[in-house]
Amino acid sequence: MGHSVPDGVENKASDAASLHSSHGQIENPQSVHKVGFPPRRKFFREFTDTLKETLFADDPLHPYKDQPGSRKLILGLQFLFPILEWGRNYNFSKLKGDLVAGLTIASLCIPQDIGYAKLANMDPQYGLYSSFVPPLIYSVMGSSRDIAIGPVAVVSLLLGTLLQNEVDPVTQKEEYIWLAFTATFFAGITQAALGFLRLGFLIEFLSHAAIVGFMGGAAITIALQQLKGFLGIRNFTKKSDIISVMKSVWGSVHHGWNWETILIGSAFLAFLLLTKYIGKKRKSLFWVPAIAPLISVILSTLFVYITHAEKHGVQIVKHIDKGINPSSVNKIHFTGSYAAKGFKIGLIAAMVALTEAVAIGRTFAAMKDYQLDGNKEMVALGTMNIIGSMTSCYVATGSFSRSAVNYMAGCQTSVSNMIMSAVVLLTLELITPLFKYTPNAILASIIISAVIGLIDYEAAYLIWKIDKLDFIACMGAFFGVVFISVEIGLLIAVSISLAKILLQVTRPRTALLGNLPRTTVYRNIEQYPEALKVPGVLIVRVDSAIYFTNSNYVKERILRWLRDEEEQLKAKQLPRIDFLIVEMSPVTDIDTSGIHALEELHKSLQKRSVQLVLANPGPVVIDKLRLAKFTELIGQDNIFLTVGEAVMTCAPKSTEDV
Amino acid sequence: MGHSVPDGVENKASDAASLHSSHGQIENPQSVHKVGFPPRRKFFREFTDTLKETLFADDPLHPYKDQPGSRKLILGLQFLFPILEWGRNYNFSKLKGDLVAGLTIASLCIPQDIGYAKLANMDPQYGLYSSFVPPLIYSVMGSSRDIAIGPVAVVSLLLGTLLQNEVDPVTQKEEYIWLAFTATFFAGITQAALGFLRLGFLIEFLSHAAIVGFMGGAAITIALQQLKGFLGIRNFTKKSDIISVMKSVWGSVHHGWNWETILIGSAFLAFLLLTKYIGKKRKSLFWVPAIAPLISVILSTLFVYITHAEKHGVQIVKHIDKGINPSSVNKIHFTGSYAAKGFKIGLIAAMVALTEAVAIGRTFAAMKDYQLDGNKEMVALGTMNIIGSMTSCYVATGSFSRSAVNYMAGCQTSVSNMIMSAVVLLTLELITPLFKYTPNAILASIIISAVIGLIDYEAAYLIWKIDKLDFIACMGAFFGVVFISVEIGLLIAVSISLAKILLQVTRPRTALLGNLPRTTVYRNIEQYPEALKVPGVLIVRVDSAIYFTNSNYVKERILRWLRDEEEQLKAKQLPRIDFLIVEMSPVTDIDTSGIHALEELHKSLQKRSVQLVLANPGPVVIDKLRLAKFTELIGQDNIFLTVGEAVMTCAPKSTEDV
Repeated sequence: MGHSVPDGVENKASDAASLHSSHGQIENPQSVHKVGFPPRRKFFREFTDTLKETLFADDPLHPYKDQPGSRKLILGLQFLFPILEWGRNYNFSKLKGDLVAGLTIASLCIPQDIGYAKLANMDPQYGLYSSFVPPLIYSVMGSSRDIAIGPVAVVSLLLGTLLQNEVDPVTQKEEYIWLAFTATFFAGITQAALGFLRLGFLIEFLSHAAIVGFMGGAAITIALQQLKGFLGIRNFTKKSDIISVMKSVWGSVHHGWNWETILIGSAFLAFLLLTKYIGKKRKSLFWVPAIAPLISVILSTLFVYITHAEKHGVQIVKHIDKGINPSSVNKIHFTGSYAAKGFKIGLIAAMVALTEAVAIGRTFAAMKDYQLDGNKEMVALGTMNIIGSMTSCYVATGSFSRSAVNYMAGCQTSVSNMIMSAVVLLTLELITPLFKYTPNAILASIIISAVIGLIDYEAAYLIWKIDKLDFIACMGAFFGVVFISVEIGLLIAVSISLAKILLQVTRPRTALLGNLPRTTVYRNIEQYPEALKVPGVLIVRVDSAIYFTNSNYVKERILRWLRDEEEQLKAKQLPRIDFLIVEMSPVTDIDTSGIHALEELHKSLQKRSVQLVLANPGPVVIDKLRLAKFTELIGQDNIFLTVGEAVMTCAPKSTEDV
Repeated sequence: MGHSVPDGVENKASDAASLHSSHGQIENPQSVHKVGFPPRRKFFREFTDTLKETLFADDPLHPYKDQPGSRKLILGLQFLFPILEWGRNYNFSKLKGDLVAGLTIASLCIPQDIGYAKLANMDPQYGLYSSFVPPLIYSVMGSSRDIAIGPVAVVSLLLGTLLQNEVDPVTQKEEYIWLAFTATFFAGITQAALGFLRLGFLIEFLSHAAIVGFMGGAAITIALQQLKGFLGIRNFTKKSDIISVMKSVWGSVHHGWNWETILIGSAFLAFLLLTKYIGKKRKSLFWVPAIAPLISVILSTLFVYITHAEKHGVQIVKHIDKGINPSSVNKIHFTGSYAAKGFKIGLIAAMVALTEAVAIGRTFAAMKDYQLDGNKEMVALGTMNIIGSMTSCYVATGSFSRSAVNYMAGCQTSVSNMIMSAVVLLTLELITPLFKYTPNAILASIIISAVIGLIDYEAAYLIWKIDKLDFIACMGAFFGVVFISVEIGLLIAVSISLAKILLQVTRPRTALLGNLPRTTVYRNIEQYPEALKVPGVLIVRVDSAIYFTNSNYVKERILRWLRDEEEQLKAKQLPRIDFLIVEMSPVTDIDTSGIHALEELHKSLQKRSVQLVLANPGPVVIDKLRLAKFTELIGQDNIFLTVGEAVMTCAPKSTEDV
């Protein structure tokens, strides 16, 4: 029977307890327990605790505890450069795994890089540059063992769209490159700053559903863009929405399509999709789809070189610079409007790139069960993009498709990224000129077959099954990208994600509780239809912290439960409600507005001669209620440890029969 | 003890139950209960239920249920025009109360109106206009019985600041008035639309703490602005921040201050503050501070008229138009930039005005225990401002100070607003010319004494005591208004409020639970230091729905609890943890990211040979876990109705001794 009278106020609860113990009631021992008040914490302590839980939730200083100074320095260096940690245990068997994986992802990345650079409206060599320097930096600073770094489709498209809104990539080619590197620089700064300030949790405001929709939409958009290369159309729209693209495609059906291009493209697309299918059917053949793109490039390039198909309207790469990354320090501009535009574009690209990289990192870390510090990863990715922006690279991040191949090829550490980097270096130094005759249609086919994997219809179906509101967010982002533009789709994704959070806190669930027969357990009567209401008592559970956003709603919703119940009782001529028990277990926190709402609830109930009773308020809540003198207002003997005890005190007759 | 195996899977739980019943365990009957699955709802039903709970939480159609058509029409009309409902029971005794209250607030509003119009950079008659039409409209459409409608200090200042950012009120006087009415029109549209679309809950995103800070800051800013009139300074800054104002004040100390003005102002300010003090000390003398402003105006006007003080540098009102509101339909402009600017300014003013009016309405409704429909109120306030914008009124809303006087003077219905309106009508028609000699210093004194009441230092202190983060929001808004500007202060208030919501959902609380001795109750060991940990079992409670915003945090936080516990156990050479029980009672919902995090948690625990056990998942959660096949993953016999039952199954030995 538990009571809750810390200061020895008049105690009807314990009277009820003794009453019940004479009836053989079973929970008598509980009467020694009161609703506990947590120990008081000083303001500064409370503040730093909150700050620590918010920013250092992963307790990053834990390993440094009780260590001597020199050890701390080594740990600190290892923290910044994880290679110092895992490098000491590196051995030949690991190298074997990394070598195979590195060579495989290199063969996949080279053709993808050339294609993705075109998505960003940049010359093909920039794609290769971005697969050389960033993976090297990441492999010494990053802590994911499986991620494959380089340019990716979605970020390339996003960057290309945002950049061409500001500068024309054809007529103002030089300014375009300047803005691209400036944006990349700011993207790196943003990423590193988020990690350094431990604000990495901000990227979690983009919900899983919104990401699924956004990625799917971006994949469709990217595939549609490839129709230009795939069909050999020369005059193609600059817009990315499906309607403009389709108009472009159908408008040029009679004089714009090139049948030779379509033939080459289709043949190789069929080949690529077939290898993809094989790789999916037999996991051990994962390397077939991984090297298929490079084989396609080699075969088609040879074919064009031999047949001189470029003279029959088959568009080819034409020119690709030879040699490794030139310095681009002097192409980053902070003057004029470059800084503002670059910052804005960099910020957006940085967030999308981070979302992708962190999602990949976490997925594979969970598979191999190692911990990944999101904030540390951001510092690594940021540093890599800052250095990238100075060495002619545009925004690089982790690639879904290549990371999966890397994992399946048996990579052990980020040495596979170094191997890939080395292969890209050799490619840049030696064989780029050979790409001259590579037909654009092949690049289009490679991109199409790569982005198809981003359309995760199974995830979308699961979201539909589990949460309809989430599905709306997913579809909103998807159609936003497909029918309007990448930025608008992203905006919709973020807005719906935020709106969903706000909705959750504004309209928390409430439930009527009933007694499970022959127990002292009280549960939601919707979930447990056998649960019985207690005559004369209404038990309501509030399923959320009570804050300014929902305090009025909670108050009014509780009064509505009461009104509905009273109308039902009246209709059935049953006794009226005398006690309203609010089960506070899920109410984890309350603020001044919430306390105010409880006071108003108490006042309204008093006018109806209904007594407000609280059950199991948590530590923070009971502390604040006491500070606001609400405990005195409703009487401390109306606050109980459990609903069961409250009911036994309020309606002893009905529970006696249990 | 209790099992949870709906499909008759192998049942170790009931073995434990029989084991315990032989020890005289008391909760045996619970073993008949399983974790309930709620009845499946169709998608459409679920969707409409969510929508209804979000937008129609107050169940506004409840009175129409089971009513004939004609009755529904009458109820509908009464809904739109509450006067049709309360008007039928109106009687002489109510009129007596309303008459006294109406006359009292009229005497208070007339001098305030003239002063507030100046805050909005408009001629004094516009203040009076806004106290004539809007209260009339509100009295037939509004449902608050105590609110006093008219121009208010904070909205006037906000509107004035926002308008003068766009148009200069001195050199472009006519355009300024146009934009003012256009903004008022859009403010009305915004308010009515929010109410009509039932989006009124949006104003609840401004937290109580932020409002307290904003109002206090605005009061200080308004009082500082009055130094111009109070000290008789002619060249005064247009900025509202404290530093600019103080520079203006000290810069003109030698040649700008007018001692006659200061004398008159100080004398009457002292008088007003004295009457305020008297009214506070003896509630029955509430009318003394209420009529003091009018008396001050009359006395000071007479004094200036007789002594011709205006010739000694005492600034006076000079000119005030006679006659009632002229039409301003042709002054509302939708062309050029008026529409965009007017909409933006109107939107901001509308939200602040609504916040104030709804807060007042709710406060007094709670005092007299009647219900107030926030959305309906917004329609009334919006309609009143739309009509106001066509009759030369600027944004009106409920005034804190006048509503309090209205309440204390014994108002019964909104007829008191009609009485006030009639008095303002008479004033406009008959005595406005007499205000010509009213010194500005008196208006400044009246405004200063009025806005002092907005500085709610007691509320600020309570916020400090109860919630330090809330206090930071409060001070942020306060200093934002005082040191920068009203808009920036408002922006800070909104940002901090939203950031607080986002923080709450990103970093939910988690707690370790322990067994209260001699019970089957498990509680937070921080709140109940006597609670005992169960050997071999770690019990963690997650205090929030698990969503994409916090799923990673929750997973990692639970693993951190486990790590810390295991380190402690290792140090003390105690047995290791075999079971991790997650108490799910407060987890009211979960989304796909949340389920994913649980799956990852399960995987991590498996690698450590720790079994994941869930206790009491709610209806929504268990349903989604089943849909996602998570229940199958961890095994349905690892899901229990209560923590007690889970512990008895997992660690039967330790609980036997209880």
